[in-house]
Amino acid sequence: MGKKQVVAGIDIGGTNTIFGFVDREGNILAEGRIKTSHFGTPEDFVSGLYRNIITSLKPVTADVEIIGFGIGAPMGNINKGTIEHPANLPWKGIIPFVDLFRKHTDRRIILTNDANAAAVGEMVYGGARCMKNFVVITLGTGLGSGFVIDGRLVSGSDGFAGELGHTAVGPPGSSNRECGCGKKGCLETYVSATGIKRTVMQMLADSIIPSELRKYSFDKLQSKIIHDAARSGDEIALKAFDYTGMMLGFKLADVVAYTSPEAIFLLGGLALAKELIFVPAKDHMEQNLLNIYKGKVKLRESELSSRNAAVLGAGSLIWSDIEN
Amino acid sequence: MGKKQVVAGIDIGGTNTIFGFVDREGNILAEGRIKTSHFGTPEDFVSGLYRNIITSLKPVTADVEIIGFGIGAPMGNINKGTIEHPANLPWKGIIPFVDLFRKHTDRRIILTNDANAAAVGEMVYGGARCMKNFVVITLGTGLGSGFVIDGRLVSGSDGFAGELGHTAVGPPGSSNRECGCGKKGCLETYVSATGIKRTVMQMLADSIIPSELRKYSFDKLQSKIIHDAARSGDEIALKAFDYTGMMLGFKLADVVAYTSPEAIFLLGGLALAKELIFVPAKDHMEQNLLNIYKGKVKLRESELSSRNAAVLGAGSLIWSDIEN
Repeated sequence: MGKKQVVAGIDIGGTNTIFGFVDREGNILAEGRIKTSHFGTPEDFVSGLYRNIITSLKPVTADVEIIGFGIGAPMGNINKGTIEHPANLPWKGIIPFVDLFRKHTDRRIILTNDANAAAVGEMVYGGARCMKNFVVITLGTGLGSGFVIDGRLVSGSDGFAGELGHTAVGPPGSSNRECGCGKKGCLETYVSATGIKRTVMQMLADSIIPSELRKYSFDKLQSKIIHDAARSGDEIALKAFDYTGMMLGFKLADVVAYTSPEAIFLLGGLALAKELIFVPAKDHMEQNLLNIYKGKVKLRESELSSRNAAVLGAGSLIWSDIEN
Repeated sequence: MGKKQVVAGIDIGGTNTIFGFVDREGNILAEGRIKTSHFGTPEDFVSGLYRNIITSLKPVTADVEIIGFGIGAPMGNINKGTIEHPANLPWKGIIPFVDLFRKHTDRRIILTNDANAAAVGEMVYGGARCMKNFVVITLGTGLGSGFVIDGRLVSGSDGFAGELGHTAVGPPGSSNRECGCGKKGCLETYVSATGIKRTVMQMLADSIIPSELRKYSFDKLQSKIIHDAARSGDEIALKAFDYTGMMLGFKLADVVAYTSPEAIFLLGGLALAKELIFVPAKDHMEQNLLNIYKGKVKLRESELSSRNAAVLGAGSLIWSDIEN
């Protein structure tokens, strides 16, 4: 009998890089992690990563074989296999990641950004299994997005399509919120773990409403704290979720006008706040939709578990590629 | 020797419906038109249209054969072959246009909206011949858009993708401009022949700058008049083009972030103003682009002649379908 086929799903983060062996059904057979920042050069990192993957595979090596390596990375370019100017990784410039990885293996290697990997993961393992047109939005420190149209991930002419987080909430000059990308008023400065924190700080500055959030510094405040405060009825926290949901819903109406998806899935920390974010987001999406779209688009929580979403998403890149 | 193959390209408008026989190279061999409003029911209209097409074909019928019918229509749904709640056509509700047309012919029939037809036309006959990822924006009474990704027209889950004209220029409450769709602040209320007229009226109200445009009523003012005034140095007209270009460029940065196109083509009346609209649009697009996209996206005039664009675009639907 042949060995069971698995893919290696790899999620490269600023602090840790995690990987796991994923079968076609989405079971993770083994996992591992290495410190991304431990490696001085991309070459060393790739060698260290590959070595660790092979070592982690040892216990099961008699039973499984790796048929490909799917990689999710910030600023990962699916067309070129590069990681380009990643703000949160220890290396600079354009890193030919797939080329470096190719020195170690002749199996399939596919690299894209985290949100695109999550979108493919949703299609292979999650709530989009029967869908051809949908969007996945990851709400973490920033806001990432992956678009699937006619069953295919949209990469665009240069491999960087789907940057919903860096679309603007209003015309030039209308927002003072500086974004890490150098622009002002990007959606992710409002709708993300950092965005809701900025909104809380703004509301604390503007209003005189008492709030337990007044005792947190900007550095100490976290979206989880805001979430908990909202659950205990803190008025500022509740208003911040409403405002965040409004900004999200308002731009989701744009998303629908562009691509007319069947569903939009939210993944990540803010999505865990459930109705606190989903209710205002859905309300404002519907209010801003053109009539022809009203009531047609599902807004749902991702069905990938937040804990494993990145590894599942990365692994799904290979399964999806094999099947298309 | 066989007959030359042509397709019938049909453009349905509120007043007139025009059609032409288009060969693979984009030559229009014969043309015709009927009054759309002359027909009381969609059934009568389709019968009249088909009869007229066959009559117009008579002079060349010995030499050519029609291999398909491509149709551009407001609110045309490519997935279902329907025209749904068209505001500018004499009929109401959901019209099963392709089904009605099917009673007259067993050849290919494809229907979509005007902007989508223009996008396919640009790919088959125009400036996007070698492109896989691009956007066409039609600037007429309203603003239409067609998106091509990976060489395929984006229709979305319900056949109505690509409604850039009805995305919002700012968050809820930030714009008072009412749109025909029932929303406020839609892009087409700023960027279209009607939009620039509204901007002129707003500027005339706000400023005390002398302008020859002060002598026109809202009803009499046309984008061509504003264009001519700008050419003669009228300050309000120039400012109106700058503002229109700014609003367009600002939203084009969003378009790029969604789909990362190689080029964006502008078609229609406002595009004829050339640098008056292209310069501010390009400036503000670049200013609002994420760094990874800067300097990469071409903003160009459509290479379909404005006069024939609608018929060419409609005809191209069939050629494109045959070749894919």
